[in-house]
Amino acid sequence: MYEPMAPLLSELADRMTPEPNGREGDGETRPVLVLKEPAIPEMADQPTMSSRRVFLARASTLSLAIPGFGAALAACSPGGTASGDSSSAKAAGSAAQGASGAQRDSLLHDNANSRLDTAVARSEHGTSSIAPGMSVSADNVPFRRYDPTLPPLATERSLELQWRAMEVPVRIRPDTVVAAWTFEGNLPGPIVHCRAGDTIDFTLTNEGVVPHSMDFHAAQVDPKVAFRSVMKGQSVSFTFKPRWAGAFMYHCGTAPVLMHIGSGMFGALVVSPREPLPPAREFVLVQNEFYLADAVNGIRPFDYTKMLTTLPDYLAFNGRPNQYVSEPIRVRVGDRVRFWVVNCGPTHPCAYHVVGEQFDTMYLGAPPGTPIRGVQTWDVPAGGGMCFELVCDIPGEFPFVNHGFGHAQKGAIGFLVVEA
Amino acid sequence: MYEPMAPLLSELADRMTPEPNGREGDGETRPVLVLKEPAIPEMADQPTMSSRRVFLARASTLSLAIPGFGAALAACSPGGTASGDSSSAKAAGSAAQGASGAQRDSLLHDNANSRLDTAVARSEHGTSSIAPGMSVSADNVPFRRYDPTLPPLATERSLELQWRAMEVPVRIRPDTVVAAWTFEGNLPGPIVHCRAGDTIDFTLTNEGVVPHSMDFHAAQVDPKVAFRSVMKGQSVSFTFKPRWAGAFMYHCGTAPVLMHIGSGMFGALVVSPREPLPPAREFVLVQNEFYLADAVNGIRPFDYTKMLTTLPDYLAFNGRPNQYVSEPIRVRVGDRVRFWVVNCGPTHPCAYHVVGEQFDTMYLGAPPGTPIRGVQTWDVPAGGGMCFELVCDIPGEFPFVNHGFGHAQKGAIGFLVVEA
Amino acid sequence: MYEPMAPLLSELADRMTPEPNGREGDGETRPVLVLKEPAIPEMADQPTMSSRRVFLARASTLSLAIPGFGAALAACSPGGTASGDSSSAKAAGSAAQGASGAQRDSLLHDNANSRLDTAVARSEHGTSSIAPGMSVSADNVPFRRYDPTLPPLATERSLELQWRAMEVPVRIRPDTVVAAWTFEGNLPGPIVHCRAGDTIDFTLTNEGVVPHSMDFHAAQVDPKVAFRSVMKGQSVSFTFKPRWAGAFMYHCGTAPVLMHIGSGMFGALVVSPREPLPPAREFVLVQNEFYLADAVNGIRPFDYTKMLTTLPDYLAFNGRPNQYVSEPIRVRVGDRVRFWVVNCGPTHPCAYHVVGEQFDTMYLGAPPGTPIRGVQTWDVPAGGGMCFELVCDIPGEFPFVNHGFGHAQKGAIGFLVVEA
Repeated sequence: MYEPMAPLLSELADRMTPEPNGREGDGETRPVLVLKEPAIPEMADQPTMSSRRVFLARASTLSLAIPGFGAALAACSPGGTASGDSSSAKAAGSAAQGASGAQRDSLLHDNANSRLDTAVARSEHGTSSIAPGMSVSADNVPFRRYDPTLPPLATERSLELQWRAMEVPVRIRPDTVVAAWTFEGNLPGPIVHCRAGDTIDFTLTNEGVVPHSMDFHAAQVDPKVAFRSVMKGQSVSFTFKPRWAGAFMYHCGTAPVLMHIGSGMFGALVVSPREPLPPAREFVLVQNEFYLADAVNGIRPFDYTKMLTTLPDYLAFNGRPNQYVSEPIRVRVGDRVRFWVVNCGPTHPCAYHVVGEQFDTMYLGAPPGTPIRGVQTWDVPAGGGMCFELVCDIPGEFPFVNHGFGHAQKGAIGFLVVEA
Repeated sequence: MYEPMAPLLSELADRMTPEPNGREGDGETRPVLVLKEPAIPEMADQPTMSSRRVFLARASTLSLAIPGFGAALAACSPGGTASGDSSSAKAAGSAAQGASGAQRDSLLHDNANSRLDTAVARSEHGTSSIAPGMSVSADNVPFRRYDPTLPPLATERSLELQWRAMEVPVRIRPDTVVAAWTFEGNLPGPIVHCRAGDTIDFTLTNEGVVPHSMDFHAAQVDPKVAFRSVMKGQSVSFTFKPRWAGAFMYHCGTAPVLMHIGSGMFGALVVSPREPLPPAREFVLVQNEFYLADAVNGIRPFDYTKMLTTLPDYLAFNGRPNQYVSEPIRVRVGDRVRFWVVNCGPTHPCAYHVVGEQFDTMYLGAPPGTPIRGVQTWDVPAGGGMCFELVCDIPGEFPFVNHGFGHAQKGAIGFLVVEA
Repeated sequence: MYEPMAPLLSELADRMTPEPNGREGDGETRPVLVLKEPAIPEMADQPTMSSRRVFLARASTLSLAIPGFGAALAACSPGGTASGDSSSAKAAGSAAQGASGAQRDSLLHDNANSRLDTAVARSEHGTSSIAPGMSVSADNVPFRRYDPTLPPLATERSLELQWRAMEVPVRIRPDTVVAAWTFEGNLPGPIVHCRAGDTIDFTLTNEGVVPHSMDFHAAQVDPKVAFRSVMKGQSVSFTFKPRWAGAFMYHCGTAPVLMHIGSGMFGALVVSPREPLPPAREFVLVQNEFYLADAVNGIRPFDYTKMLTTLPDYLAFNGRPNQYVSEPIRVRVGDRVRFWVVNCGPTHPCAYHVVGEQFDTMYLGAPPGTPIRGVQTWDVPAGGGMCFELVCDIPGEFPFVNHGFGHAQKGAIGFLVVEA
């Protein structure tokens, strides 16, 4: 009695073929895994117009483009989560790995994740992993506060950025290390600051294993060329001149984009207007959501299936849940404070608010255009950025939050301390 | 045997087993289905003011107003999903089908759907179905790209629209046919284009089985009269003059509204300002979410219970997930492109963004009012519409997306190709 | 073995004592419970900077600060929900109840709620309850429509508000009573109306059991001092002068904020500009989401775990789902109607829309600043407020809704009746 459409997880167990690395057994020791170079026939060095488009279409339609990769790492963990903790989880795992393409296709076509099936949501497929050559001892990964200060403008009118795409562990909480995909080894990537009209020469070199790319929202370029994916060891370069001021997101645009944004490849490029805004203490807050799988060797991979549920585990400003609660942002009475808030999502709006204050100025368009006055809270859309200003007339401790508290309570809270 | 990298759809097709009619299973053939006429006692032909309000109140409170209808279809499927796969599913099923109104009321009062219970979320109650007189062979339903081009304005200052509400199958993906409730047989309904101040004479004739109606957001009318529901074979007519320019949603407003919007009865009315905006290539993108039940005879009904979970299976611009990836929207270098984006939801905001570009103009109020400049991404609210403009200075392939990527990855991605 | 109030999970292991009412056993009858005064060492009357911040950090990181309280009430119910209804529920329950602090910490660190596990989502931990001294007969709680009329301005330029935080049952639907945490015994709290620049002298006295506080979004004050939590029997006072006009949220800011907003402690302060806006019929609509546990003695507690899932049971304008469907808001033809819409969330945007009408004016900044014209629908962010105006040219019955219909259908629908 088989379902004409979506196979039921409970049925898949029967149809499974044994797994290549002997994951099925229960007390088996699993050898350390050496990943083979992935075979990605469609990702040529210089994909043609159609190939990139078709690839993206396929990836997004399938809702998965990095299926077994993280699972492979997961398999390294003896007695780890790789063995499903329920029969249905095991079924899901084996099915997706061992099934024929048609079966997997069918599984994913149905987007089973949206069915609220615990087993599927816990599936270890489509998870991030760190580059296999790296040491994976979570203990050696320190917790570091992310500095929210907007870097000063360079005196030159051009910036040269040579960045690496790296798959590395990042400690996002004192007790949590994640298998992050990053720009320059951190999550978010570096804060970039320039003026409208400046020239940015950018090069990305992929030191990871899966393909990566760079999409600057502030760039006006042909994405097919400039934002193309590069394989391990390859580089891509492009030049652009941001036209508009604003708080712009950047992110890896390799398909599935959700997986690459969701696994840590995002950050902020702040473009100041040609004529300076009023003097202020300027900070950058990049909000993101975390969707994590169970830890493998002490490191929690990002979980693509969970990303598709849109129900996150954590949120954070600048990559560490609540980091600015214990180590606040500090300014002085009389300071004007300018927050460049970039919501990297991947999915939910960020209702930005400062407790005990209101924003005297918020720019709807590119600053200094279309300012509005007297704002308590404003939704920054996923993939968008906004500029919020307030004057710190009085001393105190002012929490800044995503006022969508079902999200904020998972880590999107910080403190602005105004000292006398 | 796992996939090292994204399986390509073209590769998967080869490996797929044919499925169209016999659907593999147990070898059962399923007879063509003849639905019985539904009994909907509370929908009088011409509901009075109070009756309509009370009906709407009940429907929204009960979270269900089309109780056994879809269930009847589901129940025709031998060995199908109608038999609950858990005791609670069975209990829910029996209650909703066999229970008295009071019992049903009690069941739905608790809004069990929000409890994340798989069994409940899979319940086949409250699903759409196609009109019973129709042939229901999914194989005969072709896949057709939806033309996003804004139709030209008529020279006359009045439009006469005679539309039919129809319950028909629509192929939204090469492998997916849905039991759609539609205006004029398509999902979205037809794009309408007029000027502020034009006169629109509208008539809706219900050729479906369940009651339907029409709610134009651009109309200023008494909804009790103009937007009233009509039964099979009946018509409703009204006249209105859109006052403001903008990208306006229209939809069936019959309770429960969520079910009628969610099942395909929505579309866009674009009202151009009296004085023309700058010349541009103009396109309409209607975003919607799909919440689907398992297929019955090859056709997937819309699932009201799943709609209430707000966790969609697919999203799409103009009704077909990712259709503009394989068949992009094409313009030329130098063109100004104007997107009229209508988010029909039913639930989530659409964070509209074009990769590799920024919008030089976005109108917050009715165009040409309150333009803002230099926008990367803006949230179009569910039930709202916005107008986005950019100038295509350079050639290339520019994805347009809902940058809420947990949603976009389910189909809200397309391509704008700018040819030299 | 429960904590009457135990915000610091790290302390739980030390303080756990056997439970007064014998909840541990399985078939035991449970007497009516008398709660002991909570021991909250870290919530001093005047918390120091660091103590408050650390408290908030812990609470939000742990995602739970009121663990056993509601569970205690639940325990009053013989054969109630305290005994898990599935093996996994029981497992989850036992873990959280019987585990050491470290284990509980670990359980909650993982934010298991986001895994869509029914058992976890149904956990009875972190639920609201009414003050133990109160009579808890749900039958005696009447259903009362919440008057949406904006109160007139006082002639004086100062307001003195002496409010009580109270944990009381509130009937939100004819068949549903909730264990609400309130300001002044209602949900939402009282509507406050003043002018920009007026002086508000505010005192909150806590007549409940758990700590409470007051956060006015319209106030510019040091939250550490003015918005501090007070214990049972204590008071906090502060004075502020709203600087900007607008529709401002107020709410209890005690950690976890999600729990206190989510359990009913929210409302609207409308600040009119110094120079009056055009004459209008003015109404206040406060939207909120309900996340409820199963009833105990006929009263449904608010469920913190469910709040974290962000999948609500009900929504409402002014605290009663669909109350303005049966008892509409009434105006006359020719009236200008001004809606001050405050979205108290806790989580989702509210896509405000009036069926059959458009807003001729909506203020993006503090009214009368930055008006926009011709709006069909606008997202009010969680924790934000907006001002919408329309002129009622024609008679009729106009539904006002949250056009995010997956939410609206759960109760965010009302009627504006325009009488000739």
